[in-house]
Amino acid sequence: MTGRLFVVGLGPGDLALQTPRATDVLALASDVVGYFPYVDRVPERAGQQRHATDNRQEIDRARHALALAAAGRTVAVVSSGDPGVFAMASAVFEAIEAGDPAWRAIEVEVVPGVSAMFAAAARLGAPLGHDFCALSLSDNLKPWEVVLERLTAAARAGFVVALYNPISRGRPWQLGAALDRLRQILPPTTPVAFARAVSRPDERILVTDLQGAEPAAADMSTLVLIGSAQTRRLDRPAGGAWLYTPRRLEAEP
Amino acid sequence: MTGRLFVVGLGPGDLALQTPRATDVLALASDVVGYFPYVDRVPERAGQQRHATDNRQEIDRARHALALAAAGRTVAVVSSGDPGVFAMASAVFEAIEAGDPAWRAIEVEVVPGVSAMFAAAARLGAPLGHDFCALSLSDNLKPWEVVLERLTAAARAGFVVALYNPISRGRPWQLGAALDRLRQILPPTTPVAFARAVSRPDERILVTDLQGAEPAAADMSTLVLIGSAQTRRLDRPAGGAWLYTPRRLEAEP
Repeated sequence: MTGRLFVVGLGPGDLALQTPRATDVLALASDVVGYFPYVDRVPERAGQQRHATDNRQEIDRARHALALAAAGRTVAVVSSGDPGVFAMASAVFEAIEAGDPAWRAIEVEVVPGVSAMFAAAARLGAPLGHDFCALSLSDNLKPWEVVLERLTAAARAGFVVALYNPISRGRPWQLGAALDRLRQILPPTTPVAFARAVSRPDERILVTDLQGAEPAAADMSTLVLIGSAQTRRLDRPAGGAWLYTPRRLEAEP
Repeated sequence: MTGRLFVVGLGPGDLALQTPRATDVLALASDVVGYFPYVDRVPERAGQQRHATDNRQEIDRARHALALAAAGRTVAVVSSGDPGVFAMASAVFEAIEAGDPAWRAIEVEVVPGVSAMFAAAARLGAPLGHDFCALSLSDNLKPWEVVLERLTAAARAGFVVALYNPISRGRPWQLGAALDRLRQILPPTTPVAFARAVSRPDERILVTDLQGAEPAAADMSTLVLIGSAQTRRLDRPAGGAWLYTPRRLEAEP
């Protein structure tokens, strides 16, 4: 008896940005599995089992979800944003590869969502309007040297960079080191944005530039966007500013 | 009298992946502006004006939408996927910067959507599960040398790469040249996927590898995903395969 496994993106937070497919899947799941603040975003339903766990337990959580599905349950593993971007989808397939061969027969549907990076970009204007990279600044799962190499390569090549996992209690200095490296590559006036909890009640947006960017502006819920040399800041008459990256590559001024 | 301008992501095609916010905005817009196949995806509504234009007229379309909003209309500019990813949001802000200063006072809301790249990744497994780049292969708006430089930098640094605009009638050889360049950098067994029209009735998915990848497998509606050396292919007992990129950076085998 084999059940089904859904890996569901809840979007950035506002229910108006959660897809109907995600809502439908959550309504039919017998079990909801995930990091507790994400499980808390799913409306409770009689008879539905909720399995909320702490952070940094992705593989255990994935194995638990797969075992439930293999036993015939209909399981929804929930992630914020898009589940394929630094989230649970990868952990689920890792667990399948390393786990019971029967798990490869489980029907898995990944339900994509509006990612944090695109929600942040939408709020800011269109900073990801041309070539861009998404890079996790965490060195929990890869060497710091690799993080710096990738950041350097992306900035030198002219990609806009979205930094996920910029800072945490256990990784206090990495964002500062990354900004220092970027200052060696990009003009000091390169736009930088800190976008926190976009679409949620505690949303906070800060638009600055590379010379003014301070690591203290970020926390665990913040996405940091680093412009390219082409990214433009458009100030508005009543205050505030939009950022956008033109589709056309302009020559250096 | 100033109206409002929404720049709306319709998602990849399936209405189940269109956000409620997008649906609400389309219902209240007095005018819908966009490339005709995207305007065709918006349900017709009495009294709503539809302005469908041909491709490659992004700036004219953006100016038209801004002029309508400045005249007091409630305008929705529609894009497939996410409007901030190689789509209309950037063109709108370009037009604002170059246009009537009064346009900077228009209330603009970018409504993010499920992007083609994340819809494709979800169908394939989790190929974008770690650091990745999005790169437009079109040399209409940037020199081909820059395209190749960015592709080379991204592949060498270990990013998974999502190639937008891989091929068109006017750009028949670029994808082949890009694949040739990638073969100089990445192992021949690196997973490559061609994901066409994901979530639409004419969806077509092909999973292959770098040595087997043929440009003919792509058309204008195809997203080409190039794995990194870490990306893994997981064959399933009943046929088919998942692709995923582990969250942990493994040493080379």
